[in-house]
Amino acid sequence: MALQMDRSRLNAFLDRVFPQVADQLRVESVDEHLLIARLLVDDRHLRPGGTVSGPTIFALADVAIYLAILARIGEVALAVTTNASIDFMRKPAGGCDLLAECRILKLGRSLAVGECLVFSAGRADAVARCSMTYSIPPKPAENRALE
Amino acid sequence: MALQMDRSRLNAFLDRVFPQVADQLRVESVDEHLLIARLLVDDRHLRPGGTVSGPTIFALADVAIYLAILARIGEVALAVTTNASIDFMRKPAGGCDLLAECRILKLGRSLAVGECLVFSAGRADAVARCSMTYSIPPKPAENRALE
Amino acid sequence: MALQMDRSRLNAFLDRVFPQVADQLRVESVDEHLLIARLLVDDRHLRPGGTVSGPTIFALADVAIYLAILARIGEVALAVTTNASIDFMRKPAGGCDLLAECRILKLGRSLAVGECLVFSAGRADAVARCSMTYSIPPKPAENRALE
Amino acid sequence: MALQMDRSRLNAFLDRVFPQVADQLRVESVDEHLLIARLLVDDRHLRPGGTVSGPTIFALADVAIYLAILARIGEVALAVTTNASIDFMRKPAGGCDLLAECRILKLGRSLAVGECLVFSAGRADAVARCSMTYSIPPKPAENRALE
Repeated sequence: MALQMDRSRLNAFLDRVFPQVADQLRVESVDEHLLIARLLVDDRHLRPGGTVSGPTIFALADVAIYLAILARIGEVALAVTTNASIDFMRKPAGGCDLLAECRILKLGRSLAVGECLVFSAGRADAVARCSMTYSIPPKPAENRALE
Repeated sequence: MALQMDRSRLNAFLDRVFPQVADQLRVESVDEHLLIARLLVDDRHLRPGGTVSGPTIFALADVAIYLAILARIGEVALAVTTNASIDFMRKPAGGCDLLAECRILKLGRSLAVGECLVFSAGRADAVARCSMTYSIPPKPAENRALE
Repeated sequence: MALQMDRSRLNAFLDRVFPQVADQLRVESVDEHLLIARLLVDDRHLRPGGTVSGPTIFALADVAIYLAILARIGEVALAVTTNASIDFMRKPAGGCDLLAECRILKLGRSLAVGECLVFSAGRADAVARCSMTYSIPPKPAENRALE
Repeated sequence: MALQMDRSRLNAFLDRVFPQVADQLRVESVDEHLLIARLLVDDRHLRPGGTVSGPTIFALADVAIYLAILARIGEVALAVTTNASIDFMRKPAGGCDLLAECRILKLGRSLAVGECLVFSAGRADAVARCSMTYSIPPKPAENRALE
């Protein structure tokens, strides 16, 4: 399946629609199979002890999988997260960016399922595993038919 | 089971250990069965459209269930979230605080399981449902025995 | 919301559509808020050690929440499980029926979310906690509009 | 990490400890990174419509990830499933075996996390995605120290 949005378009989308996270989160690469997003870790993300907090890892996974869906279907649809399951497996390395490697497993008419592994940059073992489901609203033409 | 920490001790714990969220998040009530925490929603939590973001709801659930565990076992243990599952069911009402109602379902020697429902204050239908597992480290005495 | 199917209609539905489980699983009670289903535990459900297996508990939760949805929307729709999250918290008591207490948290146009706690009959602490999402296909009239 | 149990030892373990599923479930291959298990689908697994039921897919994932853990740590430990999250993404193909491809993401002292994708044999798109956590009991020596 051809990509509807490449790396630079996805990053421009972040700048425009999510200005509050755009300075911390960047798409590193995207192709038909894999999107990699980087969280530029700074003090805002840290818990006592110097590691990145669970909610920050959740937020990274949420945005990254969302971008991987948009890469496939374009900006037209407004996908909403309906379910997430996350396993926190290891403490992130201190002072280290996080990388989220995302795959889309299903891209249906109304539901999309994606998963990602989150790594401390340069480490081999994943910090967290996350799977998420997004509800994709019907396209305008279909909406009209339903009215 | 008697509570180890009441509402004022839990709020003092938040002030001391989580100063970055303590001005937004308060324990409203706690007893043997139920802890209710309130998120004082402000602009930091909002997504385009005026609703509270998914990661903010996740963060509320995570802290609230964590506090419900501490209420039972006291500050001695440093519990770590190992798994979370969350269903986002409805859009939070705009400009409205969120309330998390938490129950502890299991409090084992090494694992605790809690769940919560999140509501927009004053509404009857839950915005989100969340269940989380925490790993509870062995107590110092046991650590010593293991060495 | 009025019930579309009461206990005897739900049990008749089980007999007709799920004959392979109908002799083991019965709806005990159902009202607007709660459905309770009973698994009549026998040798088929047991693991070495005499406890009910995880997949059997999963199957009980899946059917029970499904029935709780049908109680609300009637037999017209063919709901399909899309996501499940389950925490196995305690070993079921040996030689003891299981009771699943189910609540529907959301009943949308296309997605329903339910949860249940599973108990060994007569025990106070839950054996397992489960939440599930079901996809509800559009009604015939809508299907026609989409063609 | 070297494997403690290869394919033939894992299948012999199934024959001995899970006789009730051993005739339906076989380990196809196992190495340090991936275990593939096959469910020999027959009438017992089918739902109305000819597809494999959700609980059967859950049972396959549960046993397969469990075997992938045993391949690494050997038979010594008695791991117990504590959490599972599963996404049912597509209808399994009728009359087709299922293959579960399992990876272990974390193998800690007390918790192991694994995931698997389930496919209808010969198809490219996954039927289901599943992640599970297992609690690994302390080794006998540690038990003794704790007494």
